Amino acid sequence: MTKHVYTFGGDRNEGNASMRNLLGGKGCNLAEMAGLGIPVPPGFTVTTDVCTLYNQAGKQLPADVVEQIKEALKWLEGNQGRTLGNAEKPLLLSVRSGARDSMPGMMDTVLNLGLNDATVEGLAKASNNPRFAYDSYRRFIMMYSDVVLDVHKDHFEEKIEELKHKTGKKLDTEITAEEWKQLCGEFKAIVKAKLGRDFPQDPWEQLLGGIRAVFNSWDTERAIIYRRMNKIPDEWGTAVNVQTMVFGNMGDDCGTGVAFTRDPGTGEPYFYGEYLINAQGEDVVAGIRTPQPITKYQAADSGLKSLEEVMPDVYKELYDTCQKLEKHFKNMQDLEFTIQQGRLYMLQTRNGKRTALAGIRIALDMVKEGMIDEQEGLKRLNADDLTQLLAPIFDAKEKAAFKKAGKMMAKGLPAGPGAAVGLIALSAEEAVALAEKEESLDPSKRKGVVLVRIETSPEDLAGMVAAKGILTARGGMTSHAAVVARGMGKPCVCGASSLVIDVAKRTVSVGDIVLKAGEDFISIDGSAGEIYAGKLSAFPSEVNQVLVEKTLKPEASETFQRFAQIMEWSNKYRALKVRTNADTPHDAAVARAFGAQGIGLCRTEHMFFEDERIPAVREFILAKDEEARKAAVIKLLPYQRKDFEGIFTAMNGLPVTVRLLDPPLHEFVPHDEKGQAEMAKVLGVTIEEVKHRVEKLHEFNPMMGHRGCRLGITYPELIRMQMRAIAEAAINVSKQGVKAMPEVMVPLIGTVKELKFTKDQMLDEIAAVNKENGTDFMCPIGTMIEIPRAAITADKVAEEAEFFSFGTNDLTQMGFGYSRDDSGSFLPEYVSKKILEDDPFQSLDQEGIGELVRIACEKGRKTRPDIKLGVCGEHGGDPRSVKFFHRTGLAYVSCSPYRVPVAILAAAQAVLEEKK
Amino acid sequence: MTKHVYTFGGDRNEGNASMRNLLGGKGCNLAEMAGLGIPVPPGFTVTTDVCTLYNQAGKQLPADVVEQIKEALKWLEGNQGRTLGNAEKPLLLSVRSGARDSMPGMMDTVLNLGLNDATVEGLAKASNNPRFAYDSYRRFIMMYSDVVLDVHKDHFEEKIEELKHKTGKKLDTEITAEEWKQLCGEFKAIVKAKLGRDFPQDPWEQLLGGIRAVFNSWDTERAIIYRRMNKIPDEWGTAVNVQTMVFGNMGDDCGTGVAFTRDPGTGEPYFYGEYLINAQGEDVVAGIRTPQPITKYQAADSGLKSLEEVMPDVYKELYDTCQKLEKHFKNMQDLEFTIQQGRLYMLQTRNGKRTALAGIRIALDMVKEGMIDEQEGLKRLNADDLTQLLAPIFDAKEKAAFKKAGKMMAKGLPAGPGAAVGLIALSAEEAVALAEKEESLDPSKRKGVVLVRIETSPEDLAGMVAAKGILTARGGMTSHAAVVARGMGKPCVCGASSLVIDVAKRTVSVGDIVLKAGEDFISIDGSAGEIYAGKLSAFPSEVNQVLVEKTLKPEASETFQRFAQIMEWSNKYRALKVRTNADTPHDAAVARAFGAQGIGLCRTEHMFFEDERIPAVREFILAKDEEARKAAVIKLLPYQRKDFEGIFTAMNGLPVTVRLLDPPLHEFVPHDEKGQAEMAKVLGVTIEEVKHRVEKLHEFNPMMGHRGCRLGITYPELIRMQMRAIAEAAINVSKQGVKAMPEVMVPLIGTVKELKFTKDQMLDEIAAVNKENGTDFMCPIGTMIEIPRAAITADKVAEEAEFFSFGTNDLTQMGFGYSRDDSGSFLPEYVSKKILEDDPFQSLDQEGIGELVRIACEKGRKTRPDIKLGVCGEHGGDPRSVKFFHRTGLAYVSCSPYRVPVAILAAAQAVLEEKK
Repeated sequence: MTKHVYTFGGDRNEGNASMRNLLGGKGCNLAEMAGLGIPVPPGFTVTTDVCTLYNQAGKQLPADVVEQIKEALKWLEGNQGRTLGNAEKPLLLSVRSGARDSMPGMMDTVLNLGLNDATVEGLAKASNNPRFAYDSYRRFIMMYSDVVLDVHKDHFEEKIEELKHKTGKKLDTEITAEEWKQLCGEFKAIVKAKLGRDFPQDPWEQLLGGIRAVFNSWDTERAIIYRRMNKIPDEWGTAVNVQTMVFGNMGDDCGTGVAFTRDPGTGEPYFYGEYLINAQGEDVVAGIRTPQPITKYQAADSGLKSLEEVMPDVYKELYDTCQKLEKHFKNMQDLEFTIQQGRLYMLQTRNGKRTALAGIRIALDMVKEGMIDEQEGLKRLNADDLTQLLAPIFDAKEKAAFKKAGKMMAKGLPAGPGAAVGLIALSAEEAVALAEKEESLDPSKRKGVVLVRIETSPEDLAGMVAAKGILTARGGMTSHAAVVARGMGKPCVCGASSLVIDVAKRTVSVGDIVLKAGEDFISIDGSAGEIYAGKLSAFPSEVNQVLVEKTLKPEASETFQRFAQIMEWSNKYRALKVRTNADTPHDAAVARAFGAQGIGLCRTEHMFFEDERIPAVREFILAKDEEARKAAVIKLLPYQRKDFEGIFTAMNGLPVTVRLLDPPLHEFVPHDEKGQAEMAKVLGVTIEEVKHRVEKLHEFNPMMGHRGCRLGITYPELIRMQMRAIAEAAINVSKQGVKAMPEVMVPLIGTVKELKFTKDQMLDEIAAVNKENGTDFMCPIGTMIEIPRAAITADKVAEEAEFFSFGTNDLTQMGFGYSRDDSGSFLPEYVSKKILEDDPFQSLDQEGIGELVRIACEKGRKTRPDIKLGVCGEHGGDPRSVKFFHRTGLAYVSCSPYRVPVAILAAAQAVLEEKK
Repeated sequence: MTKHVYTFGGDRNEGNASMRNLLGGKGCNLAEMAGLGIPVPPGFTVTTDVCTLYNQAGKQLPADVVEQIKEALKWLEGNQGRTLGNAEKPLLLSVRSGARDSMPGMMDTVLNLGLNDATVEGLAKASNNPRFAYDSYRRFIMMYSDVVLDVHKDHFEEKIEELKHKTGKKLDTEITAEEWKQLCGEFKAIVKAKLGRDFPQDPWEQLLGGIRAVFNSWDTERAIIYRRMNKIPDEWGTAVNVQTMVFGNMGDDCGTGVAFTRDPGTGEPYFYGEYLINAQGEDVVAGIRTPQPITKYQAADSGLKSLEEVMPDVYKELYDTCQKLEKHFKNMQDLEFTIQQGRLYMLQTRNGKRTALAGIRIALDMVKEGMIDEQEGLKRLNADDLTQLLAPIFDAKEKAAFKKAGKMMAKGLPAGPGAAVGLIALSAEEAVALAEKEESLDPSKRKGVVLVRIETSPEDLAGMVAAKGILTARGGMTSHAAVVARGMGKPCVCGASSLVIDVAKRTVSVGDIVLKAGEDFISIDGSAGEIYAGKLSAFPSEVNQVLVEKTLKPEASETFQRFAQIMEWSNKYRALKVRTNADTPHDAAVARAFGAQGIGLCRTEHMFFEDERIPAVREFILAKDEEARKAAVIKLLPYQRKDFEGIFTAMNGLPVTVRLLDPPLHEFVPHDEKGQAEMAKVLGVTIEEVKHRVEKLHEFNPMMGHRGCRLGITYPELIRMQMRAIAEAAINVSKQGVKAMPEVMVPLIGTVKELKFTKDQMLDEIAAVNKENGTDFMCPIGTMIEIPRAAITADKVAEEAEFFSFGTNDLTQMGFGYSRDDSGSFLPEYVSKKILEDDPFQSLDQEGIGELVRIACEKGRKTRPDIKLGVCGEHGGDPRSVKFFHRTGLAYVSCSPYRVPVAILAAAQAVLEEKK
């Protein structure tokens, strides 16, 4: 017979902390505490498996479960010397949910169960406190009706309000025993009126009803939404904890509270918590009375009375218990306790939730204190949290004041962490103009610019560079704006759809708040996705101040020291190398400061957009034959060479993987009349010629059109120019003692012959450069694997490729057949309908796209055992994906500069998780 | 030591027909003929391997090859009793190329080699014909200079013209020995002037030069282009045949000619050929003199003198030899012969090229004659050729007359075989209107309509249905127009880019030819890709007349009998079933008549476009909530149900695989102002609403956007309506005794959860229908495999899918990352640069996309061993792809109705090719 019910406390403690999956977090920890000799009111846990059985059986408790509950109850009655429903010595119970992972506030609880018209009298007598007894009874009727009988608690609240109104009383505490008793009668009448039957007086029926209600609450909409948000599988189910009631509301020697072994907001190692005298737990939550601080330290000069002062002995016992529990669980604990007539009972302990910054501090402190070792410390960290250490920040108090003043305009997606403030620019040109105007000013006097667009495109690049932050009304976490902003380490809020951007009136508005472009400030918090009207104060992170700006000494910043510690430990364990995606010397330098071990993706297309270059690009596009194309493209050579010289110098001694031109040509031509007229003028052709060419460049599905290596196959002069720029740059900087280590990769390969053709052109150009310079420059030539066919035929591709770099963004697009730019119309629904667990553009789809990666690695190695395998693109900075890449045996991941530390930590965690 | 040179003829015949790869087609057959005792001038063959060695060695003949040539020459001199360069008894040679597969006219030949200033005198004496000798010498100098020395033959032709002008002579035959001799001198002077050295007098040097020249000619541009067109690998190389010269130009008892054992144009079993008295082979080719027919039958009443009459004995020997060779090779032979002083020499025999229709007839005749068995007969056929038996046809003579009269306007791609004539319609509406106007007329008086568009889109569908044929100025073999036209079995010419379509002026023009829409006729030959101004006479194929129109009895058509014979044999051997892609009862019936064993792809989107339906579709698209959408979509139910009733009835007893709605919704809304205004009016909304919605539907990459199963997941009411229509239709027709066998497939699945979600909706709707009707309808539910991720995770997908149907079109798009609509900008170049062997949309890419198919089959079977596997889409009608699908173990292919016979034959050939 399967065991469905486990007792805890008293003389029969059947569980422990290792049984979390079966008993839930609360249940297993109650048993664990009892095992440690900590005062826990005894009770029993109905397992999470029963939740599944219950639902499978059409919301019915199986008979053997009911039997086991009965048996456990009998033990509990014996242990307590009280009996459920006994009018003299009634046993009173709490019924609480308890899933594997805590889901605070999501599920239902019933307290004071076992009370009825008879036992309430017994309780009054036993406690010698009829007011307490009837207060407890009315609470029970309210809770039970609300949770189990589906009679909303508002009906009861009304009655209490009526009574107060009639009697002129304000507080619950003023209500007398008699009045409570009368209310109990009215409450029962409400239930009878609503349901046509009496409020259940049979405590056994009450108990089963309570247990069923908790199981039902697993499937409420709010619980489902919470699980989806927190990636908790539906199959886990919740356990139900039935526990002897203890009362914090029996008088002034009673109380209830919550405590944290450390500050969950900052991570500071101070005991921390709140309590109320003469109250039940729900009173703390309801917020009617202001809770008091637990410690004197907390209370400080507030004038509030701490538990430490009010009940020094109880406080001492609580403090010791909490310390014991933290040491036992080796983690910051979040505890609930009740004091009944001067006696302390622990009702719950669990690992406390904490902010990102607190999480980092606590893990590191515990290592320092010797509570956990550094490996455990690393495992405790959430790699994503590291971005918070790097992002510029708003002052929290100022933000709160803005919110209060109604100056928070809207929320969007937190697409690029950090804080940005500036004047509103509605176009890239405006952003550039505003920024340029400020360049002559003293930095302290600059106002900054925030680029606000419906959505961004590559043409907005200059504006994004000029802006402090980017805000869009459309687009998701992987829209152009989001990807580019994260790549630049700029704060970005995307998809703020309630924002009205009126380009004609030059305003950005939400409701009454109307901001004028070029005049008004806007502040965006890319970590929270919040948009504020007006100017908040923003500061660069301390890590940036130390590493990039060098305005702060390492030892002057605790935050930086923690960051450095995490990096040091991570570097000790990780196997994966971490490179960065960067295409300017500045980005390269930032990433290097953050620990990047090379550039994994140096895009070259951004280099084509700058003002002095774009005319040559457009001349190339308009050229009628190869000769004219060659003449145009060669004008780009000096610029491109200079770009590479800067990057090679910044990455002196580290590899730089350059990707040949990738986007379709139509991205380089203007699509508006005005731009086309300008282009015609600059190039000395008719506007019709320009229009005609732009039209010819139009594609139905540009993502799958004439781009990537396909460009270079049609226009070999293009890749020859790029290869020449790389080779000449490497040769030039090496004369200044710089060790340039370019690796060149060909994008969008589908078949080895594309690579062969392109490589032949490149090798030929390298040979020409070497001949002209009397040098022997050479570099590895490899390919992106981003087309499913390339992955499937990777054995063939490896015949020519010296390395693979997985372009998992495009591989996801092609592998799923999802256009990233268009997926907004169905992907969110896919995630909400659980067709996909995650947005596959944010976290790699390991089952499908990951399988393509795995196949490609295996086939690639078969042909070329020492082939270097890496990944570039957004997934290289996603911790879950990074761990997958580690397990798949890649040599490196590459991600945007501000995610380099995230990837470094995730890479170390991957190793540590494997050990386990 | 590797043997590089093989002698043939005389007393040392070292080769035979089985050595084609090594000796080339010509060489091995010369040896084979010699072995059969047929008179062949002796000689030797330098192998194809030497071609490769020659090229690897930087265009050098390896020393051992030269040694072996020397040795073979010595044997030949002995055999002939003549010596190369001997002034008394000179040995004269021809040097000819000879690849594995004949490449007619592509490579170089040198005749009369061995002549020089001394040997020409010997030849004059020996032949007692100085004119012949000097004529031969001047020919040799011309040819050798042109081919080996790179001095163009025009320089020499000029001199002959000068001489004729000076002497007033018109024909070569009038030129005297002395004049030829004088010209030889001038020719040599030209060479000396051009090259700065004498024309080579050393016959050995001449011989090596000739051999080298033939090897060089393997790499000329025209040869490379020819190989690419005919898919001949570069590595094959050519052999060189050095052969004793025989002369057809020594007098009137000499001659030369070509013969076919059967008529290569019609396949009729009559000996057929042409010859010239007193001529060398090049004279026949040059076309200066009109060749004479070989047989009396050919000569008929032409007044021409046949060889049969002029040289009855030689004719008899030639006839017997040819018959012997056809019987020996068991194939129609194409032969070259020379008659020297009354003696017949065979210079070449090979399998003759023939037209599609001749090929079919010859293969069937040979089976009837017992020369080959039916399996060999089937293998001989080119499956693609069968479409020619099904397509409507123009009268060949009339076409020729049009061409002569300059009425051929342009050439485009032969995108849908057959002939179509009609008035020009420039829009779908116009085509429908013109066709409707004609409906009341007697069929003989109808003019028909040809739809002429820049390109077509789904909105043109009604026009395509109304038209007899489709002509577009843009788009390739797999453009929308081409795919739909082939699906409908309509003639189609695509991508006729020289066509100027002026919608404003309502004209279609090329140069001077200007046709008025609605008034002028246009004729298109979709088999040849030709476009004619005016009205050609078109006839339906005899097969159609028998099977579809039933206006002709089977026994009255030889063509039909051949078709039926091929189908009968094919059905005997094939394992693959062949279904059709059809979405109307008419197409279904046609395909069934052609042998289709069910419908493999019944698209449902076309059913949404018809006039009375599209308003409901658009109402659905505009609807603001689910209720409104449900109300709109249910209006489509009666139509959709009726569609299915018709199709199920037409396919009574055969499976019909229905695909749920696939295209993105924007295909169903008008994109022009006028259409949007109309739509707004019909639906009673503002035009702004329409515009806004259309804008919202815009996608950057619609191919990878909101379509396929993604639609049904967002709008389950859509698939529920479709499933209901299918179920109700099946139930309805079964009451009339029709056995409906629907199978429903979900398009664009990437993950099993998409299928699960959709299937749940479908099963639920089926249950509802059954409950309403008291029925127990059920049908298999499966999925398209057309997304790479679905192929890779097919084991998971098969948990829900009862069958897979490979959508290889989209699988190719996503697998390669090629947008079919945009690939015109690079795919042709890819094929010409040999990066791809073929357009992967025409013939399946077996290495990459085929590997995805293979993986999916393997994984699908692992989960569900009896899973039914099929393929739908264009590749199902491509013979090479069909054979691949057979080898991969699919159960069926599905293709457009007019390709069903092609697939049937290819399926049989696949089996027969496996046996070998």
